[in-house]
Amino acid sequence: MSTEQLLRTPLNDLVGIRHPIVQTGMGWVAGPSLVGGTANAGGLGILASATMSLAELERAIIAVKRRTDQPFGVNLRADAGDAPQRVDLLIQHGVKVASFALAPKKELIAKLKDHGIVVMPSVGAPRHAEKVAAWGADAVMVQGGEGGGHTGSVPTTLLLPSVLDAVDIPVVAAGGFFDGRGLAAALSYGAAGIGMGTRFLLTKDSAVPDAVKRLYLSHDVNGTVVTDKVDGMPHRMLRTRFVEELQETSVLKRLGPTIRRTLKFKKLSGMTWRGLAADGRSMKHGSGRSWSQMVLAANTPMMLKAGLVDGDTNAGVLAAGQVVGVLDDLPTCEELIDRVVTEAAECLRRTQKYAL
Amino acid sequence: MSTEQLLRTPLNDLVGIRHPIVQTGMGWVAGPSLVGGTANAGGLGILASATMSLAELERAIIAVKRRTDQPFGVNLRADAGDAPQRVDLLIQHGVKVASFALAPKKELIAKLKDHGIVVMPSVGAPRHAEKVAAWGADAVMVQGGEGGGHTGSVPTTLLLPSVLDAVDIPVVAAGGFFDGRGLAAALSYGAAGIGMGTRFLLTKDSAVPDAVKRLYLSHDVNGTVVTDKVDGMPHRMLRTRFVEELQETSVLKRLGPTIRRTLKFKKLSGMTWRGLAADGRSMKHGSGRSWSQMVLAANTPMMLKAGLVDGDTNAGVLAAGQVVGVLDDLPTCEELIDRVVTEAAECLRRTQKYAL
Repeated sequence: MSTEQLLRTPLNDLVGIRHPIVQTGMGWVAGPSLVGGTANAGGLGILASATMSLAELERAIIAVKRRTDQPFGVNLRADAGDAPQRVDLLIQHGVKVASFALAPKKELIAKLKDHGIVVMPSVGAPRHAEKVAAWGADAVMVQGGEGGGHTGSVPTTLLLPSVLDAVDIPVVAAGGFFDGRGLAAALSYGAAGIGMGTRFLLTKDSAVPDAVKRLYLSHDVNGTVVTDKVDGMPHRMLRTRFVEELQETSVLKRLGPTIRRTLKFKKLSGMTWRGLAADGRSMKHGSGRSWSQMVLAANTPMMLKAGLVDGDTNAGVLAAGQVVGVLDDLPTCEELIDRVVTEAAECLRRTQKYAL
Repeated sequence: MSTEQLLRTPLNDLVGIRHPIVQTGMGWVAGPSLVGGTANAGGLGILASATMSLAELERAIIAVKRRTDQPFGVNLRADAGDAPQRVDLLIQHGVKVASFALAPKKELIAKLKDHGIVVMPSVGAPRHAEKVAAWGADAVMVQGGEGGGHTGSVPTTLLLPSVLDAVDIPVVAAGGFFDGRGLAAALSYGAAGIGMGTRFLLTKDSAVPDAVKRLYLSHDVNGTVVTDKVDGMPHRMLRTRFVEELQETSVLKRLGPTIRRTLKFKKLSGMTWRGLAADGRSMKHGSGRSWSQMVLAANTPMMLKAGLVDGDTNAGVLAAGQVVGVLDDLPTCEELIDRVVTEAAECLRRTQKYAL
């Protein structure tokens, strides 16, 4: 049994969790073991479903429920061809939270809410937060540019206050968080909790191969790089030799392997070419996208899989927040969450002494 | 008379100020008007002396003392040829705080402290903080990568906790701060206060030309760019057409105007070629520097002057934090400091309700 409840924010009440800490839905990383570990430790674990088929998602949900009776979430692609069936799965299995990397449509939000599912899209800018809040989202997660994976150029210190100004619903702050001081700071900004990705990837409960975890731990604060050479979108990755080569390689040279990986992902994910194209387009938020960009977009999941699942760092990429540079251990989810909330409570007590 | 004291941290006690807010020593910007305005509002204003001759510095100190009887600071270059005379000026005029962009030597720190002057160097990494703390510094200021002027690649969310881990002396957090939420967050991280540059530049009290202030206010969060094309070091600037051209121009084309500006600065600052070279070298923290890098280093002050003093945005550069994108007004120093501390106190009260 982990730490008693020390902090209670609107996020705890909205989702029914003991600690206002979210483990983000990292593709290939946030599987049943990590999500179950987080849930049992009192945090909100989010299962990453974009890299799973419908059948795999159902098996994963069942696997999480075998591990825990606590609430958890599923990260969905609103633009997936089988999104309606995935939503039905969440309803059928009583999943507590639906999170989205891309803004879900108004109707989808309404359907989820009708079934008591908390809707928490990720947003990258104040205007996106406004939009989904107007459509009925219950909360938003916002990731500062220091965060891993697809990321923006505005750091947490500036993006978080801007999003807090834009909406009245609970905001979960991500990007650069790893300890209790950060949680206390996020709450001081006005957030209702923090989301952490890389920090949860680097726990004993995550299924990432040990050698890959050690590779992450060996990197310092300059150990990540933001590149658009994987899928045409800015993506924060571990600075490996492969990524540096990718940065230097011309588009033409990349296209051969890229197309092979795209075909593989198309087969694996069951996505149609139309779906892949829509995917590419929606990632650019409505602007037109070329065929090669579409191929690159589908490329990302396979390159992440090569790195994060197969542990092949010579052919795969490893999404990573800049936070990787300050991490040096592999706690369990319970150890991690316990120390974060304990330290955050201490920080709030200490800070309170400054107020006259 | 401004707001009563609402927050009291180790910084207040160390420096004798009412509010734990520092106005940073921005070259060409932090003159007597801004420093006096900050001091009278209860914050710590820091006079930028690197762009002043010894005689100008004395006149500026006297001008600040005419405006206020409150404590203030002076930013020094430890490597300036006349640094000892400048230190004597501070002692003679009873200046409360000496801040440094580059680490001062142990002997200089000792001399200042012997005369009751608080020594607060700026640091860019935990190991720099450790070094100056070991040499007797009373506090450090650390600026996250989102900050303006010479800046690093690690954002406040990660750099601040790392520096706090490295030293036991008070840490002032800079980079991305502009409001009371940020002050509350910085205190929650464990900082003793915040430093703000761009936010103070954009006050009624700063002497920057109105047209230039309006240009700053017109930029959004993507309105800055980090370039090493001015002096070979990463420098966060307003993204003006001139800076974008500078980014694209070859070294050879830049060298002509650069040398002219360098000669002008050498004359104006009274620095020797040896001093300029030392300047260039120390900015690279000990690594060797070429003659052209040395010329570029001396180039910066003149390009900043053209932008910030002469208002010539076609030939000058404008140091700016990314925070410029969230600012939209020109308060007085008093209005600014009052609302920051009032909001910070509210944030701490609200956050306290989350602790069980």
